[in-house]
Amino acid sequence: MTSDGTVEVDAGTLVERVAALFVGAGLSASAARTVATALVDAELDGVASHGIAMVEMYLDRLRKGSVSRRETAEVVSDRGIAVVLDAGHAFGHLTGRQAIGIAVDKAKQLGAGIVAVRHGFHFGVARHYANVAAAAGCIGIVMCNTRPLMPAPGGAERVVGNNPIAIALPSADGPPLALDMAMSEAAMGKIRLLEKSGRPIPPTWATRADGSPTTDPREAIAGMLLPAAGPKGFGLAFMIDLMCGLLSGGAWGEAVKPLYGDAAEPYDCAHLFIAIDVGHFGDPETFRRDAALAGERVRGSARAPGVDQVFTPGEIEWRRRQASGGRVRLPASVAATLDRLSDQMNAGDGRAIA
Amino acid sequence: MTSDGTVEVDAGTLVERVAALFVGAGLSASAARTVATALVDAELDGVASHGIAMVEMYLDRLRKGSVSRRETAEVVSDRGIAVVLDAGHAFGHLTGRQAIGIAVDKAKQLGAGIVAVRHGFHFGVARHYANVAAAAGCIGIVMCNTRPLMPAPGGAERVVGNNPIAIALPSADGPPLALDMAMSEAAMGKIRLLEKSGRPIPPTWATRADGSPTTDPREAIAGMLLPAAGPKGFGLAFMIDLMCGLLSGGAWGEAVKPLYGDAAEPYDCAHLFIAIDVGHFGDPETFRRDAALAGERVRGSARAPGVDQVFTPGEIEWRRRQASGGRVRLPASVAATLDRLSDQMNAGDGRAIA
Repeated sequence: MTSDGTVEVDAGTLVERVAALFVGAGLSASAARTVATALVDAELDGVASHGIAMVEMYLDRLRKGSVSRRETAEVVSDRGIAVVLDAGHAFGHLTGRQAIGIAVDKAKQLGAGIVAVRHGFHFGVARHYANVAAAAGCIGIVMCNTRPLMPAPGGAERVVGNNPIAIALPSADGPPLALDMAMSEAAMGKIRLLEKSGRPIPPTWATRADGSPTTDPREAIAGMLLPAAGPKGFGLAFMIDLMCGLLSGGAWGEAVKPLYGDAAEPYDCAHLFIAIDVGHFGDPETFRRDAALAGERVRGSARAPGVDQVFTPGEIEWRRRQASGGRVRLPASVAATLDRLSDQMNAGDGRAIA
Repeated sequence: MTSDGTVEVDAGTLVERVAALFVGAGLSASAARTVATALVDAELDGVASHGIAMVEMYLDRLRKGSVSRRETAEVVSDRGIAVVLDAGHAFGHLTGRQAIGIAVDKAKQLGAGIVAVRHGFHFGVARHYANVAAAAGCIGIVMCNTRPLMPAPGGAERVVGNNPIAIALPSADGPPLALDMAMSEAAMGKIRLLEKSGRPIPPTWATRADGSPTTDPREAIAGMLLPAAGPKGFGLAFMIDLMCGLLSGGAWGEAVKPLYGDAAEPYDCAHLFIAIDVGHFGDPETFRRDAALAGERVRGSARAPGVDQVFTPGEIEWRRRQASGGRVRLPASVAATLDRLSDQMNAGDGRAIA
């Protein structure tokens, strides 16, 4: 353990440890490795909210049957560029890879592919799927819905999730150009940090339980997150919920369940994967070169007083991964949970992780 | 003239008056009517920024040649669902109708159509094109780029436009579900209103010229607009700029010129029109019914203290149009400009508009 209470571990070793847990819970070796790699990749990106801390909930859901041991989604329909998949509550990390692959194949044939997935489970970091499309010369656009978390502007009741969208562009060099954003103004984690330090939150972040605005983080935690930029974030979240849920013939609104709720009840979200082949529109090398130039233009732009660096979308996560040296730092509590799970499931050799 | 200094005029009469001006400037009767109708529709929606106040600038650009008298865009390429058009600096209201029509046709054949337009001019309200797709049973997604207006978060230099996106869904009944948003946190018009009333602006709206945040509306007006929700609005604006500019082989970044700049210099924006046929994914009536239900769910949700109504995206504009009774209220200065233009160009009979 390091002096800051974290445990540092080699990413490859961590993938093995986590994959063994999923094999112990009944996944095939290759599927287990895919899920484990996705979780470790999130850690390397510095997106711990989508990383190793999810393993226990994932295993609990597998054991209780709300996540299935299926490793591929079933093709419900395939018409032109439009494909509908039924994931049957399989890991989104598995069906997501399958779905973006189909979308890219369609895009290479017809210019675009759109794959809607129903009865899905959590797929981790949306950006990763968009990046798969970008690496194949396509614009990748990936969305999913979550259970309702936010009111409409002026509302006092949760009606829409903070449904994320990711967009990645093919680019010649430099950091990948890959946006990944949820539709709330701020993450609950930021509000909890300000609560701990006794500071107020901006009035645009959250409401009290009755929908009235608050700058008190305690009231916000008992209340609701607000959409990013008010009606803008709300409108996008509303559209993403319905594009995912209705194109897939799957769940939307309250039919999507809490991720950390009853582990026996399927999460039942819906995903949407769009790939657009830039080569169907023009010269793909020109696209990649100009996209890279646009990124350089932003990164090289003049900075406000006190600002060291201006970033392109996705650059911060890319820099964190570059700087990680393939090492992941886990909070001691997360590492201990992993040890306990290893012991319980007799997966791997039960050794302490560090 | 009414007591509040506005001039009320029948929408049909106004279309005739404005169309006559464009005929006088060399457009065909049908093209002139399309452009005039789009401007009057914006007024009926209460979106005066995209309405009659633009007529003088449009005519000036026509006369100086930076807007062409072409009435259709040229098809540059057509591969699968991917179509590239060259608008040749024709009115975006004309080439936009053409483009969304092609996108819908492709969508009906193959599930989606994506039409990228280069060398475009202002197309007015993006939502109107998305609504055309929705009325045809397609999800409509419409974007365009503008000249750089906003810095990246932490930046002190304009690098990206407030590039709007519109998304409309087919819906069985009730107000159309149609989002239309620009990527700045607030419109410059709102900042000017607060300046007039001597009130501060929230610190997330704008920066001073050096990129530092300000709550002083005068400093903001001399500075830069900030992206909606910081990196989120910036990231979307960046992606929209490149999706429009690079898929069309057209302009992006600083190659797009100021709309109210040198009237002899083409505006040269790029547009992107996406239609997704919901019938390729499942039963279109189920989609339309569930979309309408989702809208009702939001409109009927509990309200925060002091809030009379909760709106779905696009509902406010729809309600304004319903309430207009087909009458447009123009500021007296705008009506007077129209009279002057009529006199100057000998279009129509030169009568005062009211």
